[in-house]
Amino acid sequence: MKAEDLIMISVDDHVVEPPTLFDEHIPAKYRDAAPKVITKKDGSDVWTFNGSIIPNIGLNAVAGRPKEEYGIEPTAFSEIRPGTYDIHERIKDMNAGGILASMNFPSFPGFAGRLFAAAEDKDLALAVLRAYNDWHIDEWAGTYPGRIIPMALPILWDAEECAREVRRVAAKGCRSMTFTENPATLGYPSFHNAYWDPLWKAASDEGVVLSIHLGSSGQLSVTAPDAPIDVMITLQPMNVCQAAADLLWSRVLKNFPDIRFALSEGGTGWIPYFLDRLDRTYDMHHLWTGQDFGDKLPSEVFREHFLTCFISDPVGVQLRHMIGIDNIAWECDYPHSDSSWPNAPEELMAVSEGVSAEDLNKITYQNAMRWYSFDPFVAGRTKADATVGALRAEAGDHDVTIRATDTGRFEKAVGIDMGTLAKNATA
Amino acid sequence: MKAEDLIMISVDDHVVEPPTLFDEHIPAKYRDAAPKVITKKDGSDVWTFNGSIIPNIGLNAVAGRPKEEYGIEPTAFSEIRPGTYDIHERIKDMNAGGILASMNFPSFPGFAGRLFAAAEDKDLALAVLRAYNDWHIDEWAGTYPGRIIPMALPILWDAEECAREVRRVAAKGCRSMTFTENPATLGYPSFHNAYWDPLWKAASDEGVVLSIHLGSSGQLSVTAPDAPIDVMITLQPMNVCQAAADLLWSRVLKNFPDIRFALSEGGTGWIPYFLDRLDRTYDMHHLWTGQDFGDKLPSEVFREHFLTCFISDPVGVQLRHMIGIDNIAWECDYPHSDSSWPNAPEELMAVSEGVSAEDLNKITYQNAMRWYSFDPFVAGRTKADATVGALRAEAGDHDVTIRATDTGRFEKAVGIDMGTLAKNATA
Repeated sequence: MKAEDLIMISVDDHVVEPPTLFDEHIPAKYRDAAPKVITKKDGSDVWTFNGSIIPNIGLNAVAGRPKEEYGIEPTAFSEIRPGTYDIHERIKDMNAGGILASMNFPSFPGFAGRLFAAAEDKDLALAVLRAYNDWHIDEWAGTYPGRIIPMALPILWDAEECAREVRRVAAKGCRSMTFTENPATLGYPSFHNAYWDPLWKAASDEGVVLSIHLGSSGQLSVTAPDAPIDVMITLQPMNVCQAAADLLWSRVLKNFPDIRFALSEGGTGWIPYFLDRLDRTYDMHHLWTGQDFGDKLPSEVFREHFLTCFISDPVGVQLRHMIGIDNIAWECDYPHSDSSWPNAPEELMAVSEGVSAEDLNKITYQNAMRWYSFDPFVAGRTKADATVGALRAEAGDHDVTIRATDTGRFEKAVGIDMGTLAKNATA
Repeated sequence: MKAEDLIMISVDDHVVEPPTLFDEHIPAKYRDAAPKVITKKDGSDVWTFNGSIIPNIGLNAVAGRPKEEYGIEPTAFSEIRPGTYDIHERIKDMNAGGILASMNFPSFPGFAGRLFAAAEDKDLALAVLRAYNDWHIDEWAGTYPGRIIPMALPILWDAEECAREVRRVAAKGCRSMTFTENPATLGYPSFHNAYWDPLWKAASDEGVVLSIHLGSSGQLSVTAPDAPIDVMITLQPMNVCQAAADLLWSRVLKNFPDIRFALSEGGTGWIPYFLDRLDRTYDMHHLWTGQDFGDKLPSEVFREHFLTCFISDPVGVQLRHMIGIDNIAWECDYPHSDSSWPNAPEELMAVSEGVSAEDLNKITYQNAMRWYSFDPFVAGRTKADATVGALRAEAGDHDVTIRATDTGRFEKAVGIDMGTLAKNATA
């Protein structure tokens, strides 16, 4: 198989929300209190809501920048690629990158909508969250049918209300809701608490996947305040691994056999070891810990409930059958620093020697379609004009040049204090 | 290769310290203050020192018990296998298990000697720690030459003193010192602080490996207070992974090119993914984070400095060449609950189909000999009488029956509060 013949759906990209997000979607009575973008004296644009100020973190929008400029300084909209916040430009960037469809996690509200949840006025919080979901589904995803997998934010502070939101967005065709790696670390009941049962039931009923993104626990893997930032970057998938173990052994999977989760940006190469560790833990300990999966092994239960996702993972591609070929989906991570846009198809092929077209198709688009009940072949689009080659032809001469910022505001970020970073983490 | 032809050195077992430990080794002036075993009203034996009481945790000494009896209740010496605390019985158990030699981590002092470090009287702490090391090297390891890889405890509270202890025990032939996964979480300077330089220098000079055992950070991977204990058991190797990342990106490896670490009980199946993640993190981020490994990749640097270790890890065995065949050592974990004693040789062969004798020999004994500068072929022992088959013949009819305790004190431990467990963790 050649890169140009791949059909690619990315189950993990990001939208940098545009300042106009709430214009059409928030009820008039909440307009003044809704989140707003302001420009600070240093030229950076920030979101404000409920007394909080949320900068656009540099690493979250570096697509199209040279690596020397990666950093975590706040940025202005004028310094980031329009494709990060403008859906028309996004589609052009997707075409140029050969990407047929994309699921977009939020930026300023945090992956699980923590920012909105923090508002004491829960009516306001609910109005803002619903407006966000309506904007995402109707406007961001709705403008180009078949190109964006719609995704909703959860209501962390009220599981009954969250269940209603699952049913509301499902009725609009949305089959993905973000969730947190660990509600307990965010101050809510843990995965082991019946508090969440209404949500699990609604998600099961409606076929909505809970998409758990790396970094959504509110905790970074910080070993020490003086550790280099490379340690935290390396360890990020560890939190996702914790979430997988937490859910696997919980009552959730036992009581809700149709519930499904995606481990977004969690990587896949560690999964075979993890599955073996689950089975060995079960074998060695279940007689005294009381775990009971009937006639199944924990690794089998895992494959029934979890979609694993990778950006670039040569080990995972090689071990795909130890993971489960129906449990792996590719992701691009545009416009974050781990993304290989616009060369992702070529990068994937470089680590896919000997992988059959059947396996590649499952990984690059068929698993994503099935898990998220998503059909990109709409509005006359056929497989023939869904390939990397066809989309790039559509993109024409769309500019994907990597270029430095003109402002000179980017400086090397060597020596970042991890304690401060952890404290300021809003995702 | 057949199981009976293997030569097996385990680089991770445990000693349950006998009550007589300090009798011959503590100076007279510290005899009254030295740690002592007392029997509590409930019949359990506990160590006492410096106002602390340390029970023998059940899971730490379950070898020879049915799995239904695994638990974390305190135990009495009369309820655990004599091989856990009596060197003569230990050698018989090793023979019956086909194990030529064994490295034994401590129990009641904690893997990195935290218990001793907590004493305000640092002269007492030093005397107790040295007595422990003398007992371990001269008595526990010294009684049967070539059977026990000697191992010393570190001095956490004074890196200069620790360096002196490295040189003192090295002069007695000891080439392994335990260390912690994370000194920062124990309240000491982190791996990134020059405080530890005297220790790294002494260990480099003397060829002493720092053996970092899973669980030695003082932190368990606890996701929520109400999480089932299976979650924590599954996630234990995650802390070791954090230690590996913390050290890999630190200045330690750059400034001390001869320093070596063992990731004890850390497992191996996750290493290929981890190495790829290190290299990708370096590729994507080093231009702004400032990391510099010269002409090497982080994965190459890892292989120069780290020994990885597994008990039973079919994934790791399969991926041995992605890990590094010279960087893997087998371990038995006697008498902990993860151990497969006395059937470890058969269990290893069951997951080693297609593995060459050359690879197996490296994993089962040659890597251990080289990393720990340890020679088991002493006192007339040849390779021919070092095999599993030869040792089992030596063991004769030594009883290895799995049997239940008579006391009935073991109950199912379902519903353990993980918050309490984490708080009480002494390792």
